[in-house]
Order: sequence, then C-alpha cells, then structure tokens
Amino acid sequence: MKILRTVHAEDLEDIAIGGAILGTGGGGDPYIGKLMAQQTIRKHGPVRLIDVEQLPDDALVVPVCMMGAPTVMTEKLPQGDELMNAFRQLEQLLGRKIDAVLCGEAGGLNSTTPFVVASASGLPLVDGDGMGRAYPELQMVTFTMHGVSATPMVLCDDKGNSIVLETVSNAWTERLARAATVEMGGSALLAFYAMSGAVAKKAVVRGTLSLCAKLGQTLRETRAAHGEPVAAIADLLDAKVIFQGRVKDIDRRTVGGFARGTASFDGVEEWKGHTFKLEFQNEFLIAHRDGKVLVTTPDLITLVEAESGNPVTADAIRYGLRLTALAFPCNPQWQTDAGIKLVGPRYFGYDVDYTPYA
Amino acid sequence: MKILRTVHAEDLEDIAIGGAILGTGGGGDPYIGKLMAQQTIRKHGPVRLIDVEQLPDDALVVPVCMMGAPTVMTEKLPQGDELMNAFRQLEQLLGRKIDAVLCGEAGGLNSTTPFVVASASGLPLVDGDGMGRAYPELQMVTFTMHGVSATPMVLCDDKGNSIVLETVSNAWTERLARAATVEMGGSALLAFYAMSGAVAKKAVVRGTLSLCAKLGQTLRETRAAHGEPVAAIADLLDAKVIFQGRVKDIDRRTVGGFARGTASFDGVEEWKGHTFKLEFQNEFLIAHRDGKVLVTTPDLITLVEAESGNPVTADAIRYGLRLTALAFPCNPQWQTDAGIKLVGPRYFGYDVDYTPYA
Repeated sequence: MKILRTVHAEDLEDIAIGGAILGTGGGGDPYIGKLMAQQTIRKHGPVRLIDVEQLPDDALVVPVCMMGAPTVMTEKLPQGDELMNAFRQLEQLLGRKIDAVLCGEAGGLNSTTPFVVASASGLPLVDGDGMGRAYPELQMVTFTMHGVSATPMVLCDDKGNSIVLETVSNAWTERLARAATVEMGGSALLAFYAMSGAVAKKAVVRGTLSLCAKLGQTLRETRAAHGEPVAAIADLLDAKVIFQGRVKDIDRRTVGGFARGTASFDGVEEWKGHTFKLEFQNEFLIAHRDGKVLVTTPDLITLVEAESGNPVTADAIRYGLRLTALAFPCNPQWQTDAGIKLVGPRYFGYDVDYTPYA
Repeated sequence: MKILRTVHAEDLEDIAIGGAILGTGGGGDPYIGKLMAQQTIRKHGPVRLIDVEQLPDDALVVPVCMMGAPTVMTEKLPQGDELMNAFRQLEQLLGRKIDAVLCGEAGGLNSTTPFVVASASGLPLVDGDGMGRAYPELQMVTFTMHGVSATPMVLCDDKGNSIVLETVSNAWTERLARAATVEMGGSALLAFYAMSGAVAKKAVVRGTLSLCAKLGQTLRETRAAHGEPVAAIADLLDAKVIFQGRVKDIDRRTVGGFARGTASFDGVEEWKGHTFKLEFQNEFLIAHRDGKVLVTTPDLITLVEAESGNPVTADAIRYGLRLTALAFPCNPQWQTDAGIKLVGPRYFGYDVDYTPYA
C-alpha cells in the first residue's frame, strides 16, 4: 500500500489549524483536537495517510467523529479511549475487521479525531472526508448521497455508556443520536457510516487532510517569513476576502445541542462604512454584506484573525475582535440537487436559494 | 414444566383491568393493553403461565415492557411486532436462546405486553413482575436491588428504528432510554434486565399476573351478582378505603416524557366535609387527606369508580367523577433501605418519610 505521508504528533498542530479553517466556524476547537491526537500518537505511534484509491474495493472503511455543541466540547475534554470503544464495538457488530479509518468532517476537532483511532488501531487513514468542510447534522455527508447508511452506529460517552443505533434513515439517526448526545452531557464519540472501498472511492471528498496540513503549514511559514498569512491561505484555497471588520455584536445560544447565533461586524480599512453579518448553526451558513445575502451554504465562509490568519470558530467570536471573512467554493457534490436538498440554505430554514459564489 | 394456567384471549380483559388496579394510576390504559395482547393470542395461540420456581437456575429470562407517558400511548397504538423485534434483537445480542418471558411492571398495558411476546414466541410467561405495581422509571424494579443490569437493552419504535444501550448503571439506562423514547414520539417498546432463573427466583414479585386475573374476575363476577365490587377487591387486596369523593380539580402536564400532576377531591357520604389530594408522576405517589400526608409510595394508592369498581388511571381523571381511593401495602422488598432509596417519597422530590400504611 502506497503511503502518501506519515503523520507524526508534531504535524497535528498544522492539521488542526487547517481543519478549523475548513470548519467554517464549527467542527470543534483546534487546540483540543490537537491535544487529543498528539497524546495518542505519542503513545501508539504515527499515522499512515493513504489515498482513497489505495483501498481494495472490498475493504471495510469506517469514519469516526465527535458529535455535540462545540461550546460543550471545550469544557468537557474527551478521552481518546471513548473513540476507540465506539470503533471496536462497531467492528464487532459488523463481524469483520475494519481495514481503514476515515474522517467524517473537516474541523479543528473532527479533522484530528480520526488520527486518534488510526494511531491506536495501527490502521491507515484515508486522506479525505465526508464534507470537505464541517456541518452540524450527522446526515450531512456525501456518504448519504451515495446511499450509505449511518447505522449501525455506535455512540460512546465519557462515563462508559454506549448506544448502538439501527435506524430507518440517516435523518432518524441524527434525531436519535442528537437526543442521546444531549443527555450524555452535550458531546459523544461516534463510529458510523461503515462502507466498502468501492463506495468510498465515489463518495469521499478527496485530499481534505493533506489540505488541512498544507493550510496550517502555510500559515505557520508565512508568519515566520513576516509575509501575509491571510493572503497566503486565500491563494491556496482560491478564496476571496469578502469582509474585514470588527465584531460589533454577537448573539449566541445553545439550542437542542447546537450553538446557534448571529455575529455582526463594522467594516475597517477598505470596508469602512460597510456592515457584515454571519448566521451560524455551529457552522457559518449565511453571510450578509450591507444587508444583502452574499454567500450561502454549501459554499464555505470562514473567519480568520486579520493579522495572524488564525481561524476563529463561532464559539471564539468576541466583541471588538478584528477579523477577516473568506469565502470559497464547496465540493461539487454539494452543488447537485441532492446536495442542496441536504445542506442548502432552505434546509436550515433560510428563505434564500443557493447561488454559487465565484 | 408445570403450567399454572393457560391464558386465552378472553382472559386478557380481566388481566388488563386487574393490572390497572395494581398500576396505581399508571402502567398504561387497560383497553389498549387488552387489544394488543388479544390480537396476538388470537393469531399465535394461548400463553402458558408458570411459577418462577419452575425455571431451572441456568434459564435465561427476559422482561419486556412499554416505556413512555401513558397519555401518548393512548394516541399512538403500538404494533405487537415492535415488542418482538426488541425481544429477538436482545436474544441475538445475548447469543443464546431465551427460555421464558417476564413482566416488568403491573399496569393496564404493561401487565399485558409480556403476553404478546409469550404468545408470539411460544415461550412460557413467569407469573410475577419486577414491582408488584407500576412505577415511572426504568431502574425502579426489584431486579435493580438484586444487582441485575438493565442493559444490554433494546428499544424499538413504531417506525422501524432500534437502539441498543449498554450503560454504567440502571439510572443511566433510564436517562438515555427516556431521551430516546421522547425523540421516538413519546413511547417505545423494550426488552431488558436479562437474568438467570436463579436470580429471578430471588428478585421477582410473585403471583402478580394471577392476582391481576383474579382482580378482574372478582370485579366482573361481583358486578354480575349485583354485589359490591369495591368492597370485593378491597377484601382481595387487604386494602382500605381511604376516601370517597368527587374530582374538584385536576392539574396535569407532560414533562420530560412523564405525566405529572395533582388531583383534588371533595368528600361525599361518610367523607362529606373532608378533602383529598393525590400527587402523581404517571403513578399516584402521595395521598393527602384534610391537608395531611396519609399514604406514600411505595405503598399502593389506587382509584376506582365508586359504583363499578373499575380502575381509573391518572390520565382518565375528569372533573366531577365520583371515585373511591384504596390504599394497600407494597411488596416487602420495597420496604428495605435499598427499596426506599429507589422508590421512596424523597426520590420523587417529596419532603416526607415513608411510614408503612396499615
């Protein structure tokens, strides 16, 4: 099997930061994601990253991730063991050895959780994910569009409780898993969407984890060279700067296990006199500029610190922070009718049609 | 194996009515319970009722029941199939054949659900249950006091979803199963508390199902003979009439999957000029007379129609109904320290100590 690269503990910093950029405000805190994965890799050894094409068609591939409101995760640090519990329980349920680990979503935390399992199990990790970004609900993965069932799914918590779900649809998986996660204290660790290598080759958004690593590396090196970090990552992502401003107001609440809210900005520099507003449900879903909708899900909207280029999650937005908003195109799978139905603005309750932002 | 009696479809009417008397206001609607079990027995044949002593020590016994607010169950009639799904899934998980079915709680509905599974599976049904009455939470069974784990537990809903729980305590089983049940629409069907014949002999409250049948039969026959039905069942249960009155006020709300509330009464006949109040959480838990606590959980408080002696669930209490309240002693297992901790008035948030009502 051809290895794309071997990922060591020190590489996780870049991956977590890059994950938080693709996480579009959600997907968990990169600091916690980094700590979790580094701890495991130092104990169990580095992770072999492989291209999805390396998988035999009959291989068994399993994504893992953390579910819950990011607000909760920062206060309730997961143990690496719970992820492995979920993974091993699912393997036992499926009655055959899992051949490779997969990433569910890109995000500060969920781009690193698969490294925990890959390191502890010694299995290779596929360079890709099910979104190319982060989304708040379980059924919002390209896997759903390829007919992969989220169940059997195993959820574990930090107390030692575990739940196996078998549902009639991925939307029902989301409902039942969400209720369980809220009861478990707001966060849980999952193994789900077991699929064959053949299906993975069609469904996976490719190269997500190397892109995370590259984004983190670019930020770090550009800063070291006293360059312009925001411009450097915008270039790498083919992203446009859509606003620069200061946080004027932030309205945030945890509803049904989600962090929902709105952040408003006053423009600075070339955007002076203009206003900007972001609506989020864990992730940034809609950007308004001067009162008009500018970018919507599934295109990516991300916030970075104007100077350092470091990503800022919806949780970390504070009054007065000076931030830059970037927008860039989503994976083409999301632009299909099925994709828009699953993650378009109307699914989230916004009365707007999706128009690709280019 | 010695059979205590063979239970036919027509016997279910008595059992459901008797179950509702022991159900102390909860445990589900006897009309729905009867319909469910009769339908199955007409299709699959009668049920063999056995004494718990007939079980070999190494037999595998599994209780089944319905979980949820009784208010919901009357609107959302369960299919017998869901119970069998839960039962068969648990059997598969345990990796061995189940030898007998057990009743979880006495109640209008939950005294009949085990007949559905016993009939459809052809297995014998143990004459007993885990309470000798009804209680609102899953951990409130004598099985808990004998160290039996509620998990692995299987929950099924009417849509085809199923959940397997493995928890660190029976209290956690209650929390997670409750959240899932609420999300499933307010009711779910369960198989849980798998135990050996040896443990069942110690833990089971014996004779509950024959008592249900006898109570129903006594009511029916006394009415036919123009006797006094209330006096007849009071005699059978060694119960005291603690009040006769008309419903003056009923305050009822569904909170977190439970039907909670208070019913107030004005006395009639010998109780004229006196007042009475019942507090319930699915089941009647505290009876006050003339402003003083008279009877508390775990002793049984039940309401029957003054004329017919038919049991009245908390759900069926209506303004103006003329009812008689009976009180009778609980199974001695509940009077231990462990029992009072699990189901005493303080567990339910009432600032009262339990004093046996005799």
